[in-house]
Amino acid sequence: MAGASGKKEKVDKAGPSGGGKKKKDVKKETGLGLSVKKDENFGEWYSEVCKHEMIEYYDISGCYILRPWSMAIWEIMQTFFDAEIKKMKVKNCYFPLFVSPGVLEKEKDHIEGFAPEVAWVTKSGKSDLEVPIAIRPTSETVMYPYYSKWIRGHRDLPLKLNQWCNVVRWEFSNPTPFIRSREFLWQEGHTAFATKEEADEEVLQILELYRRIYEEYLAVPVVKGMKSENEKFAGGLYTTSVEAFIPNTGRGVQGATSHCLGQNFAKMFEIRYEDEEGKREMVWQNSWAYSTRTIGVMIMTHGDDKGLILPPKVASVQVVVIPVPYKDANTQGIFDACTATVSALSEAGIRAEEDLRDNYSPGWKYSNWEMKGVPLRIEIGPRDLENDQVRTVRRDNGVKEDIPRGSLVEHVKELLEKIQQNMYEVAKQKREACVQEIRTWDEFISALNLKKLILAPWCDEEEVERDVKARTKGETGAAKTLCSPFEQPELPEGHKQRTF
Amino acid sequence: MAGASGKKEKVDKAGPSGGGKKKKDVKKETGLGLSVKKDENFGEWYSEVCKHEMIEYYDISGCYILRPWSMAIWEIMQTFFDAEIKKMKVKNCYFPLFVSPGVLEKEKDHIEGFAPEVAWVTKSGKSDLEVPIAIRPTSETVMYPYYSKWIRGHRDLPLKLNQWCNVVRWEFSNPTPFIRSREFLWQEGHTAFATKEEADEEVLQILELYRRIYEEYLAVPVVKGMKSENEKFAGGLYTTSVEAFIPNTGRGVQGATSHCLGQNFAKMFEIRYEDEEGKREMVWQNSWAYSTRTIGVMIMTHGDDKGLILPPKVASVQVVVIPVPYKDANTQGIFDACTATVSALSEAGIRAEEDLRDNYSPGWKYSNWEMKGVPLRIEIGPRDLENDQVRTVRRDNGVKEDIPRGSLVEHVKELLEKIQQNMYEVAKQKREACVQEIRTWDEFISALNLKKLILAPWCDEEEVERDVKARTKGETGAAKTLCSPFEQPELPEGHKQRTF
Repeated sequence: MAGASGKKEKVDKAGPSGGGKKKKDVKKETGLGLSVKKDENFGEWYSEVCKHEMIEYYDISGCYILRPWSMAIWEIMQTFFDAEIKKMKVKNCYFPLFVSPGVLEKEKDHIEGFAPEVAWVTKSGKSDLEVPIAIRPTSETVMYPYYSKWIRGHRDLPLKLNQWCNVVRWEFSNPTPFIRSREFLWQEGHTAFATKEEADEEVLQILELYRRIYEEYLAVPVVKGMKSENEKFAGGLYTTSVEAFIPNTGRGVQGATSHCLGQNFAKMFEIRYEDEEGKREMVWQNSWAYSTRTIGVMIMTHGDDKGLILPPKVASVQVVVIPVPYKDANTQGIFDACTATVSALSEAGIRAEEDLRDNYSPGWKYSNWEMKGVPLRIEIGPRDLENDQVRTVRRDNGVKEDIPRGSLVEHVKELLEKIQQNMYEVAKQKREACVQEIRTWDEFISALNLKKLILAPWCDEEEVERDVKARTKGETGAAKTLCSPFEQPELPEGHKQRTF
Repeated sequence: MAGASGKKEKVDKAGPSGGGKKKKDVKKETGLGLSVKKDENFGEWYSEVCKHEMIEYYDISGCYILRPWSMAIWEIMQTFFDAEIKKMKVKNCYFPLFVSPGVLEKEKDHIEGFAPEVAWVTKSGKSDLEVPIAIRPTSETVMYPYYSKWIRGHRDLPLKLNQWCNVVRWEFSNPTPFIRSREFLWQEGHTAFATKEEADEEVLQILELYRRIYEEYLAVPVVKGMKSENEKFAGGLYTTSVEAFIPNTGRGVQGATSHCLGQNFAKMFEIRYEDEEGKREMVWQNSWAYSTRTIGVMIMTHGDDKGLILPPKVASVQVVVIPVPYKDANTQGIFDACTATVSALSEAGIRAEEDLRDNYSPGWKYSNWEMKGVPLRIEIGPRDLENDQVRTVRRDNGVKEDIPRGSLVEHVKELLEKIQQNMYEVAKQKREACVQEIRTWDEFISALNLKKLILAPWCDEEEVERDVKARTKGETGAAKTLCSPFEQPELPEGHKQRTF
């Protein structure tokens, strides 16, 4: 992963040059090459990588444009997740963007959690609305009045709905592309069951899908676990999450959450059903969501000093084919070989593109596609033509290989799988290197200052959690519990290990 | 189509009954059967049909919940259209929901067209925003400042982006599910070209896709044509549309629009490129959109007094299989045959479901699935089991057939195709019956009062259009031009036929 690939190759950073011209007239404004290194100024580095066709900063602070390069990643994840939840008999629907204040404020803990971030519409055209209307920060209160209407008997259960939509949280702290934005895209699933057992089971099924998105698609290792009482979803019973860790910042990032809401919302919104004996019972509810934040976590995890590195499974272009003509060599033959290569790969279901632009040098193209993170580059020059081969260059570790054109497709498929696997392994090793198990307060503080992912024994008391937060305020950053991992070592009675 | 199927069968409307009980304890509140007829009170009829699992009315006026039954239709259309535009090299992206006022107001005609309907966010939490922020009614002004940044040279063209999103138009007149709602879902494509020819060509390519959505998917006949100057997109050069016609209301419905924006927005937002000779030129732009309105047009076109009728291509359930047990007959055998039937159909890619609920009578189920519009019903009773057959009942025309189980899949495939085709043909005949070509003002007025789709010769002058509108205000409804159809008869010089 990451930094590794910077070492092995010297890449020609010469810029775009006219048709037959030499590489001298480098255009600096094309933005080739990053101006900062990942290890030196992580924030700047991240912003630069994002700006390279993933995101465009928008004229309203905290809002970002998702450009096709990042949107394609979102769509690939969506295709996977949507099919999986459909297998679980979840159905898609669409509820309004707007919430009336009465409904929004019905669940007290819930609204307390979201109130400061709610955006309000108060005018249409030049007229004031009679009552201000909120924009959904999440849709529990939008949906559940109707669950109450639709659910009558036990045969109406389970009710499993999901929507793909935008939500708005008008945050004021540190807007960051993908990670923290005022509007973002997500899916939100909202389900209701007759029994707690069914709800509990689904919480974990969904969490497993979130793990798969991170680990199998984005090649980002995550820890599954339980959030603390302080950190759980406002108004819910308990919250499970997948937590990622960014070594450069020493911070955990909540990757996605699957909540059991218990019967709290059911009580507020009177969602009851008649059971088989004719008794009126309250339903058990879950809600679960992952958002475009996933993409930010992926960028932070894999990117290096050359730019983005995309895992093959989510890359909209998995292979870029670049002609490397040389002086009086058979240029047309090389171009044709590139086109034939792309055709062969495309037919085999590999997402491949050629870059035949004649106003950029091969070296410039290498850098450009490296910056965009394409997992595999294929170069075809006169020597390759002669030997009926192509040269492959991996983005993750820079390894080059000459492969015979006869076995192109099998080779490339295999390489893409290897890249996907390797990116995950490298990321996991880097994270493991940051994990520190501690037993004492001194160890805790020193690990915190070393930006470690801390595994600490924990008594699960809210007060202690607040105390730790308060006592670490002066340190690198107040320590916040991430989760209590489901995989636990043996610990003193009454304690669970918890990540910070 | 439509009304036809009401005549042929007598359907048992008995309600849900307990396990082995008789059909006496009908539950009226399940809402079986419509309370009005399509021809008697169209507005009420439409609202009732929508409410039957397509839509839920929301507590904010003009906003509606899209339930899974309608959302699935949207998703099927989306899958088709998204794949088609991707073949045209259009890429998906996502721009923010919010627009700053300065940008929104940049194109004068455009903002004049939309200003009265714009919703404004003025507060977040308890604080006032420094500047009110608009919610997009459409995204031209959201996107084009960035087109200006991204487009530099001729190699950056064409730029073809699309987004699937929600937009808000705070309309005050007659909110109607799907047809006119304050928030709705749509796709909006925004493209930029070096030449007008390319833009012109794309306008029609997209319009053809819209025609296919209506005619091939929704089985709704439409007229392709050109909007008048008065009716074109605010700020654009010209607007093409597909126009549907609802015989019951005598009104045309604008089905979807494909606009050529010309260079007007390019001028306002300074979207220029350097051509091959190094000259700075303005781009030519298009924008095009279809929305969830499509679903409303489909409901209005096909529904009958029993409820919805879904064309097989967009029905999330194409075939429903219902057991018809009889007294001491082999009930388990019948249930097993239903399950086997669904498996066989599903394996062949047909969207089939069984309804094995034991608390509803077969008759109640027939009515229920008819109301939901499922195109084909399969009944399996003791006699069918004996004869190794199933009975099919078409929703569109009520025709029943006994088909051998051996050729189930082929038969059902064929039937679904026939239903799709027949629904289109019937709808087309009904529309044709409403078309009236006129030459004089008297003919015009009489056709208008008969709720006809009028084809009138037209001089294409804005003033005359306004005059006609004014002079018909007292009639059934002011006459509004729909479009000038691309297919034209021979007319006096300077005239084109135009639909009203």
